[in-house]
Amino acid sequence: MAPRFERVAIAGVGLIGGSLALAARRAGIFGEVIGCARRSETLAEARQRGIIDRGSSDPLEAARGADLLVLAVPVRAIVSLGRQCLPALAPGAIITDAGSVKGEIVRELDSLVTRGRSFVGAHPIAGTEEQGPAAADPNLFANQLCIVTPSALTDAHAADRIQALWEAVGMRVERMSPERHDAVLAAVSHLPHVVAFALVNAITAAGSELPRYSGGSLRDATRVASSSVEMWRDILLSNSAAIDEALAGFSSELQRLREVIRRGDESELERLLAHGHEARCTWGRSA
Amino acid sequence: MAPRFERVAIAGVGLIGGSLALAARRAGIFGEVIGCARRSETLAEARQRGIIDRGSSDPLEAARGADLLVLAVPVRAIVSLGRQCLPALAPGAIITDAGSVKGEIVRELDSLVTRGRSFVGAHPIAGTEEQGPAAADPNLFANQLCIVTPSALTDAHAADRIQALWEAVGMRVERMSPERHDAVLAAVSHLPHVVAFALVNAITAAGSELPRYSGGSLRDATRVASSSVEMWRDILLSNSAAIDEALAGFSSELQRLREVIRRGDESELERLLAHGHEARCTWGRSA
Repeated sequence: MAPRFERVAIAGVGLIGGSLALAARRAGIFGEVIGCARRSETLAEARQRGIIDRGSSDPLEAARGADLLVLAVPVRAIVSLGRQCLPALAPGAIITDAGSVKGEIVRELDSLVTRGRSFVGAHPIAGTEEQGPAAADPNLFANQLCIVTPSALTDAHAADRIQALWEAVGMRVERMSPERHDAVLAAVSHLPHVVAFALVNAITAAGSELPRYSGGSLRDATRVASSSVEMWRDILLSNSAAIDEALAGFSSELQRLREVIRRGDESELERLLAHGHEARCTWGRSA
Repeated sequence: MAPRFERVAIAGVGLIGGSLALAARRAGIFGEVIGCARRSETLAEARQRGIIDRGSSDPLEAARGADLLVLAVPVRAIVSLGRQCLPALAPGAIITDAGSVKGEIVRELDSLVTRGRSFVGAHPIAGTEEQGPAAADPNLFANQLCIVTPSALTDAHAADRIQALWEAVGMRVERMSPERHDAVLAAVSHLPHVVAFALVNAITAAGSELPRYSGGSLRDATRVASSSVEMWRDILLSNSAAIDEALAGFSSELQRLREVIRRGDESELERLLAHGHEARCTWGRSA
């Protein structure tokens, strides 16, 4: 059953926070929406686009009396912003976030949240490389996956309400421990982002005229390098151990291909390519 | 001015050969089109789709009396197929190819082609991961780049006609030496393909359930791993030295990011990400 939140504070009214507000208002599950952003132009744009009813650059003021606080800010700003807002929230309020890394955030906020309030970590896997209120889209979440990451300390009823919130905006929800989430996302998201940045930097170093000769392969492989630098700096630093492991696995597969190409081992190269080809064609069918 | 070819033999009637035939017929510059493929089902499908008028699995028979021979087969089949067809071609015929690697092919065919016939290497950068006559599309080449790679031995008039052919099907044509072409393509195309295969193999090794948690970043970064294994085995082996150099540059950028993430160097990480972000946003505007 769809939950209802009467007064919702959203910190970060860009792609994720803005899209959630638009989708949840359309679904009729958000009452008043108060936005929080550092810059007044961002808040004005969010108001103009119908994302928020009103806004404040002061987190405490934005959070006052809210029964839901959504922390849709870069990963490393989540904990301190949650701590700051906490005293202003209504009794029984739920805090949730949309961060791409969960372990550290869940641990820290679990230890802070008391007095009848709850924290439930969530990660809607629905970003694009776009940013800001202008990129907000009420259909962003439709049929995408959201991972909700309860810990042993998470209130079960609050977790159900947050799950219902993301389902109400069209997402499939799966639950996972914060640690498992971080290992999975390191492999399927953080790794391809690091690879994209490394590819762009390597091509740029090899010659500034090179990109004009690229076809779709380089364009697609590097698309996410145009993502927010601040957001990805935070994600990579917050999940460094799991990312290092994912990078180790990737580097070893890359090195294996490199050696096989270098020594002209036709049958082994064919085997490695066929392995990737078959796996990728299967993803295509299931994704 | 658009050239005209009265009898055209196309070896390989899949994505590139098939699309060229459809586009050139629509532009009115191909007379009779004779296809060559190993399997009779492929030829039947190509006939049915209006790609060819007739076909043969015998290269000599397909090439008989042709004034243009297009070798649109995997890179390492091009030279031997060209050699095989040569005696059957009309006097003054032009041979061209669509291979993604040029140095070896241009050297070999330059030394074979005599008796008033000409070879002109070309690489239309317009592939996708799809294959076969079913993927042929007369609009595949529109506004894409074709690199024509004349050598010191290439007949100037023949090179002009091949340039005009690709322009007639909608491509922008640029000329480059075969060696320069191979270095450029190693960086902008062969490298992202190797990276895509390595990414899929690394993710698969880390857990078969992982792909279902991926968002757009992994999907886009690995899209080309569903390309033809035979085609890419050939390309990678034919351009191994240039690819090794491109892989060295990429591995070093990847390792640099890895170390910066590992030691939590926030400002250096931000600098590396910003470098990639800015470069990639510029490509977006120019591509």
